[in-house]
Amino acid sequence: MTKILKLLSLFLLALIFSCCENNIINDNPKWAIVIHGGAGTILKKNMSPEAEKAYKEKLSDALNAGCNILEDGGTSLDAVTAAINVMEDSPLFNAGKGAVFTAEGKNEMDASIMDGSNLMAGAVAGVSTVKNPILAARAVMEKSPHVMLAGEGADEFAKSHGLEIVDSSYFFTQRRWESYKRANKNKYGTVGAVALDKDGNLAAATSTGGMTNKMKGRIGDSPIIGAGTYADNKGCAVSATGHGEYFMRNVVAYDINALMKYSGVSLKEAANYVIMKKLKDQGGDGGIIAVDRAGNFVMTFNTTGMYRAYKNSAGFSEILIYKSDN
Amino acid sequence: MTKILKLLSLFLLALIFSCCENNIINDNPKWAIVIHGGAGTILKKNMSPEAEKAYKEKLSDALNAGCNILEDGGTSLDAVTAAINVMEDSPLFNAGKGAVFTAEGKNEMDASIMDGSNLMAGAVAGVSTVKNPILAARAVMEKSPHVMLAGEGADEFAKSHGLEIVDSSYFFTQRRWESYKRANKNKYGTVGAVALDKDGNLAAATSTGGMTNKMKGRIGDSPIIGAGTYADNKGCAVSATGHGEYFMRNVVAYDINALMKYSGVSLKEAANYVIMKKLKDQGGDGGIIAVDRAGNFVMTFNTTGMYRAYKNSAGFSEILIYKSDN
Repeated sequence: MTKILKLLSLFLLALIFSCCENNIINDNPKWAIVIHGGAGTILKKNMSPEAEKAYKEKLSDALNAGCNILEDGGTSLDAVTAAINVMEDSPLFNAGKGAVFTAEGKNEMDASIMDGSNLMAGAVAGVSTVKNPILAARAVMEKSPHVMLAGEGADEFAKSHGLEIVDSSYFFTQRRWESYKRANKNKYGTVGAVALDKDGNLAAATSTGGMTNKMKGRIGDSPIIGAGTYADNKGCAVSATGHGEYFMRNVVAYDINALMKYSGVSLKEAANYVIMKKLKDQGGDGGIIAVDRAGNFVMTFNTTGMYRAYKNSAGFSEILIYKSDN
Repeated sequence: MTKILKLLSLFLLALIFSCCENNIINDNPKWAIVIHGGAGTILKKNMSPEAEKAYKEKLSDALNAGCNILEDGGTSLDAVTAAINVMEDSPLFNAGKGAVFTAEGKNEMDASIMDGSNLMAGAVAGVSTVKNPILAARAVMEKSPHVMLAGEGADEFAKSHGLEIVDSSYFFTQRRWESYKRANKNKYGTVGAVALDKDGNLAAATSTGGMTNKMKGRIGDSPIIGAGTYADNKGCAVSATGHGEYFMRNVVAYDINALMKYSGVSLKEAANYVIMKKLKDQGGDGGIIAVDRAGNFVMTFNTTGMYRAYKNSAGFSEILIYKSDN
């Protein structure tokens, strides 16, 4: 009887431990990838089963695009680029095809990428002709002496480096979007990806169309290294989504990294403090995904939902939308 | 004899302490302001006495513009704005009048400002017609829902809020610059200011013309909240100058603030670690000025010079240029 009680209490302890460590895998997977497709007021009651299915399928496509690279021993940089590419090409998300319009009825897109192994980073802001802004951000990182290019200069740079240029009409497909618009009055859908590769290197990337009806020239947190995107092998890789201005004032992506490095707290504690306490107290809606070098990862948001998914070499994988999915 | 030795050793200790605490005043002044006019390869042997005098006079003008406000009980936000305005209006510095040219022969200026009492911030990037970019940054903070506006959108916003718009020819005055050009082959001169006011509030501001011959659309660290500028009453106010790309990748201004808050080190230790160790190891040239709520301040740079000056209510004031001035 005592033995049974002992076994039972051990089982209960294990259960409690696994609940507390939700979203944190501690067996050092060889690789891991986490993606998001935006956080906001995303409620199951407002979502049609068709829309939910479409979002989950596209998140799965993006996740697999990244996983295939990581499984083959590719870099985290290539994995996040591939995952973002898939989401940029889908009209479901507010990035690339499907980006929202400015108050002037134009698309102005932002993107950034960072390599945690050497702190190299690239970003574009306000681009309007390059098909995949994340490829332009990566070209800035790899083929220019700069970190950030904006506006015409960024579009011209992308073109001069052979990236695919499209007519601005490409970014919006009325027919494909109409069916989802009724279900989602507000268009969320900044997309992001963070990854750890087999070499132990971290990378992060983010791409967005910005805020609906934003002022001409407005730059949000997505292309800002430190606010919307950060990757540092000594800490973690982070991609953010939400009300950009709050993420900029609080330097959210870097703040989580700094808390880990300077306070010695875990990734989960750092993310919880920044998103659920600091930002929430200020009224800053949104969330982040992040992964550290041990493969611990978080998907932390203070809204009712965040399109999100993860997969790692330990065999764990989930595709989630609502807060209640946690 | 023993008594004399004791007194002597006490005196030596005090001397050592005061040397170690160079640039740090610990008697909690009511207000303090620190300004910079750029860091770089600034050597006395290459500087004419006339140029040196001109720089010192203009730094003094900028310092006094800020001091007058702080002495009268004005805000740190008004003080840093006033100091930056004076330097933007001078062709000596690479900000406003006197801004450098892009590879296309155009002026594209960046500026940012932050209020440490509430983390509100404003920035403009790539403006080319507003006479004082720092006023445009402040208008973004106070009169828009956004933190950052770039390009035409930013210029149009500044105009719509009644800021002075000038022809692009205003920013370069050949005649006034020519006499200094010979002495300074490379044009440094991003300008910045940080201040503590009598209410205990911190503010920071930075303004620049960017890098000489920079690519069209290049955005550096100056308009990036967290990289070139940050202010937080809980930590410090920072303005940076140097090779912007390194400052962006390392989120320098926020990093100093984060180190103070999360590691509990002093402002001086945080600034030394970031500028003299992290940046130096990476080859990132430049420096920062910073002040905390106790009135401690630093002017830390890893180059041969930084135009810099400080003044506080305790009566301390200096105007310095070279490293050897320390």
